[in-house]
Amino acid sequence: MAIISQKTALVVSAHSADFVWRAGGAIALHVERGYQVHIVCLSYGERGESAKLWRKGSMTEEIVKASRHAEAEAAANVLGASIEFFDMGDYPLRADKEDLFRLADVFRRVQPHFILTHSLADPYNYDHPLAANLTQEARIIAQAEGYRPGETIIGAPPVYCFEPHQPEQCGWKPDVLLDITSVWEKKYAAIQCMAGQEHLWEYYTRVALQRGVQAKRNIGIASNQIIIHGEGYQSLFPRVTEDLS
Amino acid sequence: MAIISQKTALVVSAHSADFVWRAGGAIALHVERGYQVHIVCLSYGERGESAKLWRKGSMTEEIVKASRHAEAEAAANVLGASIEFFDMGDYPLRADKEDLFRLADVFRRVQPHFILTHSLADPYNYDHPLAANLTQEARIIAQAEGYRPGETIIGAPPVYCFEPHQPEQCGWKPDVLLDITSVWEKKYAAIQCMAGQEHLWEYYTRVALQRGVQAKRNIGIASNQIIIHGEGYQSLFPRVTEDLS
Amino acid sequence: MAIISQKTALVVSAHSADFVWRAGGAIALHVERGYQVHIVCLSYGERGESAKLWRKGSMTEEIVKASRHAEAEAAANVLGASIEFFDMGDYPLRADKEDLFRLADVFRRVQPHFILTHSLADPYNYDHPLAANLTQEARIIAQAEGYRPGETIIGAPPVYCFEPHQPEQCGWKPDVLLDITSVWEKKYAAIQCMAGQEHLWEYYTRVALQRGVQAKRNIGIASNQIIIHGEGYQSLFPRVTEDLS
Amino acid sequence: MAIISQKTALVVSAHSADFVWRAGGAIALHVERGYQVHIVCLSYGERGESAKLWRKGSMTEEIVKASRHAEAEAAANVLGASIEFFDMGDYPLRADKEDLFRLADVFRRVQPHFILTHSLADPYNYDHPLAANLTQEARIIAQAEGYRPGETIIGAPPVYCFEPHQPEQCGWKPDVLLDITSVWEKKYAAIQCMAGQEHLWEYYTRVALQRGVQAKRNIGIASNQIIIHGEGYQSLFPRVTEDLS
Amino acid sequence: MAIISQKTALVVSAHSADFVWRAGGAIALHVERGYQVHIVCLSYGERGESAKLWRKGSMTEEIVKASRHAEAEAAANVLGASIEFFDMGDYPLRADKEDLFRLADVFRRVQPHFILTHSLADPYNYDHPLAANLTQEARIIAQAEGYRPGETIIGAPPVYCFEPHQPEQCGWKPDVLLDITSVWEKKYAAIQCMAGQEHLWEYYTRVALQRGVQAKRNIGIASNQIIIHGEGYQSLFPRVTEDLS
Amino acid sequence: MAIISQKTALVVSAHSADFVWRAGGAIALHVERGYQVHIVCLSYGERGESAKLWRKGSMTEEIVKASRHAEAEAAANVLGASIEFFDMGDYPLRADKEDLFRLADVFRRVQPHFILTHSLADPYNYDHPLAANLTQEARIIAQAEGYRPGETIIGAPPVYCFEPHQPEQCGWKPDVLLDITSVWEKKYAAIQCMAGQEHLWEYYTRVALQRGVQAKRNIGIASNQIIIHGEGYQSLFPRVTEDLS
Repeated sequence: MAIISQKTALVVSAHSADFVWRAGGAIALHVERGYQVHIVCLSYGERGESAKLWRKGSMTEEIVKASRHAEAEAAANVLGASIEFFDMGDYPLRADKEDLFRLADVFRRVQPHFILTHSLADPYNYDHPLAANLTQEARIIAQAEGYRPGETIIGAPPVYCFEPHQPEQCGWKPDVLLDITSVWEKKYAAIQCMAGQEHLWEYYTRVALQRGVQAKRNIGIASNQIIIHGEGYQSLFPRVTEDLS
Repeated sequence: MAIISQKTALVVSAHSADFVWRAGGAIALHVERGYQVHIVCLSYGERGESAKLWRKGSMTEEIVKASRHAEAEAAANVLGASIEFFDMGDYPLRADKEDLFRLADVFRRVQPHFILTHSLADPYNYDHPLAANLTQEARIIAQAEGYRPGETIIGAPPVYCFEPHQPEQCGWKPDVLLDITSVWEKKYAAIQCMAGQEHLWEYYTRVALQRGVQAKRNIGIASNQIIIHGEGYQSLFPRVTEDLS
Repeated sequence: MAIISQKTALVVSAHSADFVWRAGGAIALHVERGYQVHIVCLSYGERGESAKLWRKGSMTEEIVKASRHAEAEAAANVLGASIEFFDMGDYPLRADKEDLFRLADVFRRVQPHFILTHSLADPYNYDHPLAANLTQEARIIAQAEGYRPGETIIGAPPVYCFEPHQPEQCGWKPDVLLDITSVWEKKYAAIQCMAGQEHLWEYYTRVALQRGVQAKRNIGIASNQIIIHGEGYQSLFPRVTEDLS
Repeated sequence: MAIISQKTALVVSAHSADFVWRAGGAIALHVERGYQVHIVCLSYGERGESAKLWRKGSMTEEIVKASRHAEAEAAANVLGASIEFFDMGDYPLRADKEDLFRLADVFRRVQPHFILTHSLADPYNYDHPLAANLTQEARIIAQAEGYRPGETIIGAPPVYCFEPHQPEQCGWKPDVLLDITSVWEKKYAAIQCMAGQEHLWEYYTRVALQRGVQAKRNIGIASNQIIIHGEGYQSLFPRVTEDLS
Repeated sequence: MAIISQKTALVVSAHSADFVWRAGGAIALHVERGYQVHIVCLSYGERGESAKLWRKGSMTEEIVKASRHAEAEAAANVLGASIEFFDMGDYPLRADKEDLFRLADVFRRVQPHFILTHSLADPYNYDHPLAANLTQEARIIAQAEGYRPGETIIGAPPVYCFEPHQPEQCGWKPDVLLDITSVWEKKYAAIQCMAGQEHLWEYYTRVALQRGVQAKRNIGIASNQIIIHGEGYQSLFPRVTEDLS
Repeated sequence: MAIISQKTALVVSAHSADFVWRAGGAIALHVERGYQVHIVCLSYGERGESAKLWRKGSMTEEIVKASRHAEAEAAANVLGASIEFFDMGDYPLRADKEDLFRLADVFRRVQPHFILTHSLADPYNYDHPLAANLTQEARIIAQAEGYRPGETIIGAPPVYCFEPHQPEQCGWKPDVLLDITSVWEKKYAAIQCMAGQEHLWEYYTRVALQRGVQAKRNIGIASNQIIIHGEGYQSLFPRVTEDLS
């Protein structure tokens, strides 16, 4: 099957726009390098992250969800990723065992080589840590031989937490700075699909520029490598390697 | 010069045996891959880590130091690294500005692609954190254009803290597990050069086996990669990359 | 409406007496300064914090709850605050979505200028962190345009965690010391309403005196301001200001 | 009753083998000293920790559970402890109020002088922290006069978290090193009952040796006490004592 | 004296440009509100933060220092603050008792109502934490009646750590967001005095915009207050207040 | 010698009164149980902790020191401990190698079974952490065979940090609560020797009562043990034991 012969990645987004601001560069970069990247949006962010739509008046949850669905699909398209929607509701996001198994089944199907999701804490947003923990637990279940015995279990793909809106308040500390300079145009095109949150376009452009400067600083100013845009990630597991340079 | 055309690494060891237990695998592994690895021993550990010698009776500090010098040189030889001794004294290790500049000058000369040193805390051993901080500050000074202007500054090589004797008590958390299976025999041969601390041979053999099991667990039990021996490291700076898998 | 023209505050208490020991001073102080302060007691503490009543014999949960209700109402009265009881049960306190929405609706109704609740951790009491997290999440939901669209959303009022019984064990670190000297008599009168927990009266008197000394120390012994009694609080969000003195 | 006249301990294990690797020494040691030690296994680990069984083919959850039940019972027998199984399921372990009360009732019945359970965090295993939190909350409920009024409440027995598989990744830091040298043979016999996880036998033998060396180091190399094997524990509450030596 | 009748603030900067990027807004804001703000530059940053000058060739430390002196004086002028230079050297910055007393004497003279300095940790820059600790200790000494007995001791002015270059790597978490919108033009004019570090102008403009957005988020999107530019600070002591809103 | 046949303890106090407030109970308790307790005061606290004396006017450092010496000697006498004064100066306390060796020699002479000193952090007092670190390093040196070879080295006695003035601000978390009820009168008598700091008498009486209540809470309210006064301590090393109850 295609999935097995190709490298894959899985992105779990609490609301339908999170993956764009926070991981659009990583998605585009790995798609360009031949990965199949699959995105799961647990909710549309219909209640909590669609203020602009609700202010239009005569709005219903269905219309909001449809609009958010379209935007996210367009962004995924720009980035080159596949996308699915769990429609679990937001503010609050809640997950029962069936939701957990549904996500574990995606892990089994996708067999990701790495995973991107939210930070484990966020005092401004309780849906984000819930998504991160659900992702972590689904990964563990998909590793278990006794879950749907006979299916191919997954390995131990690294999990990276993407940058929250106010990083220091979330106890988030990046240990990976990803150089996304080569795909920035694509990320910004995806950002522009998010018509309902235009106030964030420039905010996340600046985030990318700051992480770019920091990445450059962390390879040394004497280096010839040009880095303009970056994304920060925090790993949840140690990296296994044979090379320290 | 040879140094420039070849990848290099620098190891800073508070006492003359630390590099063997804690980083022998990394040194051997990178030497085999073509790196020139250089070791600086700040002291011989003549007071604090030579109990077996002192118990022999009619011992002097000079004899202890000579014995430790010979052991460390033999171990470096086995591992394939060059070594030098600063002879700064131990228990307590203390560093003034001249020591700092001396180490900064080694950074300038070696131009290391990565650095290995101690953890930043160790309630059992105050020399270890001092060595780590001295290393960090020397690296910063070697990066400064205004220090010995005209010399080639160094880049921003990653710094890894190697495993202390009682890791949890030192707040040390490995984020890198190095697979040293292929060079274990060489590391154990270097360990055996440390005749004065034979009680530690099996201790650090077990450390290597435990980190090996953990490394295997962190790549997934389904993986075909065989890992028997490992070394753990904690990074002090974020890693800059274009690849998350 | 009155609520809109007046400054308001909301206190969320896991059990019906918590607000007295931990926030009685803040409540009285702000009531005196013109705030309308509203208290929500999630439970009566009927199981876990009514030992003296249960030891009387021939007691039922209803009698305990009625007794606790009366005490808490009397204390709120002394402090000048309004109070309501959710009667969600204690030991364990548990909250479902409806409880969360019920509390979010209180936020919408009260439109608080600040919020007081429990610390986020307490190894001696699992109801306290649950109350704190429920409060935080209700605040987030009450901020969302998509929750009960058309209602007035709340702003971003600061949240302060009040002092737990054994502060260091809870990882609680006060960053605000409130001078409650001027209202101490009122707080102590409210404390005396808690007939079922008389063993705590002197304990929390001493807490107030210690925090008072510390407040004095933090403004400097040279200051003319007299502070005798204090209450400590930990903020969960950064403070936005134009004044650093 | 026998329970009252004898010292007792309670061990809460998420899966049916955890108590062997992590607390077998403490159990055997205290049994030898006259304690009645009781073990509760919340699940059999049938899904997540029985890979070897599942790989045999034509396996069912019932057969796995029966096999794990037999192994755990044999191990408890070797150690001299009583054991019961809650069969709550694993991967994921989930607990509702009835599970909590069931465990609180065990606390009431056993009246333990100390408690052993899992660490509060484990990114590799979400069942472990859930077991630890369930244990902590059950202990709190069993302390409450208002829970099943009239029953004898429990005191405030210390709670110790046993060592997780990758300790540094779990933020686990031992503050107690238990000398299990005298009962090591018994612990290793119990370990050998775990036929389904033979790959862990040597791993946990090495853990015992490492903790033994560290215990020796923490009493001083000059001491005459011989310590070969150890187990590490992290306390969750301060220790009350009259003796600091 | 004028100093006593006027509110004052003290800024301690490790290198001669730090105060501009990190605290220029706070300085300008408080000057506009009538404070006398005094800046102490411990060094010129002549070695470590003057790369552009050194690259010009035929440069000496004296010329670099003179250039940095002029830039910093111009920036202080734009901001409306007084400035003095301790010329202690950088890379490494080192302080002996005399340096400590010299700074304590500035505290005594200025009698500051608040203090701004560096963060307590910075793995990229060892001079910054040294400056922060020197400032903290000088403040303590200036509080002591027994230091230069007879002089007026200082009170307990709050200390705020300003934002380091890579905040998460420094463990810095802002608990104060200062609205500097009204003085941004002045801060940017001061920034432009730093001809030698032009690459940082846009970096710190973006920092100000990001902190502005976050400040707005922390007062609530429904608020009428317009915040465009911000500066973040971390307090080292609890705040004493009578007002929680 | 007497020292060897008797249990001993060592207390290292930055200033001459610290041991009274913070460890008076532990000293008296262990003296009553037959320990020889020895106190080292590194300084008299002549500058920083003698405000009342300095305010008397026509005071000199010599008179202050003499007065502090007399008070501390009287307090040690009441507690039954021996005492010596290093007179290293305070505000700032500074230690060179000779000071370190002098303290290591006290360790060698006293051969303590446990050690009491300050917390490792204190933002209000830089002398306290310096004293704690000096003590820790002196203990390490006294353990080394190569320091003054031929002398009897010390073992690995536990180190306990006593309670700082504002515990949460110092990151101090007690893991030991010492029951000092039986010696409280003696501690309070020692406290009363500190005529120069009368404002602290009641503060530390309340500290003792609060820690007493917490100790009682941590053994369980159902226990028959009466605890009125307590002292809190934080251990720096794991405890080695064979008993978990």
